[in-house]
Amino acid sequence: MEPVAVAIDAMGGDHAPAEVVKGVMEFMTRNPDPRIYLVGKKREIRRELRRLPAGGMNERLSVINANDQISMREQLLTYWRKRERTSIQRALDLVRRGDAQAMVSAGNTGAVMALAKANLGMLEGIGRPALATLIPTVKGKTMLMDVGANVDSRPRHLVEFALMGKAFMQTVHGIENPRIALMSIGEEEGKGNELIKRTYAILKSMDINFIGNVEGRDAYLGESDLIITDGFTGNITLKVAEGVVDVVMSMIRSEMRSSLQSRLGVFLLKRSLRRLRRRLDYAEIGGALLLGINGIVVIGHGRSNAKAVGSALELSVRMVRERVLERISAEISGVRNVLEELSYA
Amino acid sequence: MEPVAVAIDAMGGDHAPAEVVKGVMEFMTRNPDPRIYLVGKKREIRRELRRLPAGGMNERLSVINANDQISMREQLLTYWRKRERTSIQRALDLVRRGDAQAMVSAGNTGAVMALAKANLGMLEGIGRPALATLIPTVKGKTMLMDVGANVDSRPRHLVEFALMGKAFMQTVHGIENPRIALMSIGEEEGKGNELIKRTYAILKSMDINFIGNVEGRDAYLGESDLIITDGFTGNITLKVAEGVVDVVMSMIRSEMRSSLQSRLGVFLLKRSLRRLRRRLDYAEIGGALLLGINGIVVIGHGRSNAKAVGSALELSVRMVRERVLERISAEISGVRNVLEELSYA
Repeated sequence: MEPVAVAIDAMGGDHAPAEVVKGVMEFMTRNPDPRIYLVGKKREIRRELRRLPAGGMNERLSVINANDQISMREQLLTYWRKRERTSIQRALDLVRRGDAQAMVSAGNTGAVMALAKANLGMLEGIGRPALATLIPTVKGKTMLMDVGANVDSRPRHLVEFALMGKAFMQTVHGIENPRIALMSIGEEEGKGNELIKRTYAILKSMDINFIGNVEGRDAYLGESDLIITDGFTGNITLKVAEGVVDVVMSMIRSEMRSSLQSRLGVFLLKRSLRRLRRRLDYAEIGGALLLGINGIVVIGHGRSNAKAVGSALELSVRMVRERVLERISAEISGVRNVLEELSYA
Repeated sequence: MEPVAVAIDAMGGDHAPAEVVKGVMEFMTRNPDPRIYLVGKKREIRRELRRLPAGGMNERLSVINANDQISMREQLLTYWRKRERTSIQRALDLVRRGDAQAMVSAGNTGAVMALAKANLGMLEGIGRPALATLIPTVKGKTMLMDVGANVDSRPRHLVEFALMGKAFMQTVHGIENPRIALMSIGEEEGKGNELIKRTYAILKSMDINFIGNVEGRDAYLGESDLIITDGFTGNITLKVAEGVVDVVMSMIRSEMRSSLQSRLGVFLLKRSLRRLRRRLDYAEIGGALLLGINGIVVIGHGRSNAKAVGSALELSVRMVRERVLERISAEISGVRNVLEELSYA
């Protein structure tokens, strides 16, 4: 197998470039094959590399300079003129030219999406890209998509998301016939808004393992492998979940400082609590996938630490090796006739 | 002050009538004034009453018979014909006739909403009712509405929700100038779907304390007093939050059983963990309000236990005493001109 090459945006995320550089070096130590292009302000990257063991020397690592960067909340209008000089664009250049097979960034999600679409184009038959991520459930993990690539979606987009997600779960997670659900406000057919009701009717008629609607609470039971939602609802779902974990953790902390007895209890539970945090941690999951683009793009969480960067790199390499793009294309072309009928749905 | 009378649906909720009857008796012990009409299958109610201290005797309690009931997931088409005989309808009758000033049910939310609207009508100037509930945040509590009365809302409905919620927070929670936010997928104006963008523009122009968009995660920081959303997103938000709490609690339980040391730690933390559960518990909050109806209607959580029933009763009595309906009407008539312009928004 030819070694995979990944281009990573060194300037993306709240803790860039330090944590990105550290995450890359840790990833390379664990994975003896992949090549990495570290793209960003060369001087800053070099300075971070020098702080690491062996001065960050690795023959599979290339540093590619980009003089500019796009900040986390910058809007299209302000970054568009300078885009050619930015680390996101330069990393995508490497993929477009075929020097790298995947791109990873924990930077401005909107910018990565817009530039990835402009540079790499869409997979044939797909109207809109979607962001997908794994959520922890009582039983394991479930994929949720779209979590924010689109705001106002139509039924045909949700159907595309389902097909892309299915191909991903089959190849990367080895689930032969993934259980696909629609997020709604009631399990029965006919419960939900117009978008969901119309999408339900289409998914029901297709040759997929569609298990119907799932409510917000039941999404966390782990009874489905893939939950489809529009990007507005999906993004709110994801962030609400993060917010609730924050609330619970802050309550645990305050409750447990309430007496000497509690403090002793917490001391005894230190290891368990750390494990709990880890199970709930976005860093273990490795970020969101941008599916539908003609190229592999993984978007890390804005707060990514070195570990999260490593997980995102691992996911991108897996997607290349498992030929996820080809599998999605095959899935889509298999139902081209259905999708064409939905052009205006 | 004249004693308040509340009609409660004894057959509503997963643990009815036992927990409802128990909750009513506990409530009456704590509150020496209010009268209660307990509405449902008389024989079943009497049987539950006999199990309680003093045989459930209380001169402020009347049992009103209703031969039928609406099950938790029953649809309009199946309950409509029998509605006159149901406990929900008979409880609403008492409010319509003026025998009671509020109605409480932990039963089928859709049925309570539909029958309340049909029996009591809407407040003047309000197009659609909305369900509102409190969510726990890092700092305290925030009201979220609509959490499921409507599926496809228009901007003018969200504006109505904001005005109703404002009046409620002012009267019942004593917050003079509540901070009102819109749930969206980015803080900046212009972030969100069409509905949110259009609603933002209207709220910004009004004489209220509108603080802009709030993201899903930040909703739990407690920086706003009232968060406005459409019923589809709001319902999913609420249920996702419940699901995440379930996941975290099940992880805590499994982590903490992992070693002898952990078990000892948990033993020492027993009281703290119980307090934590209570802080996250829906039973403390007392259910959702149905605002916009020309009458006070509180809808308990379907899984209500006696404590939740008591909280819902307490909330309904407070709403009567604080004259919430009058306050909402005043709020609405103060901006009648704005709302009329929005008729088609």
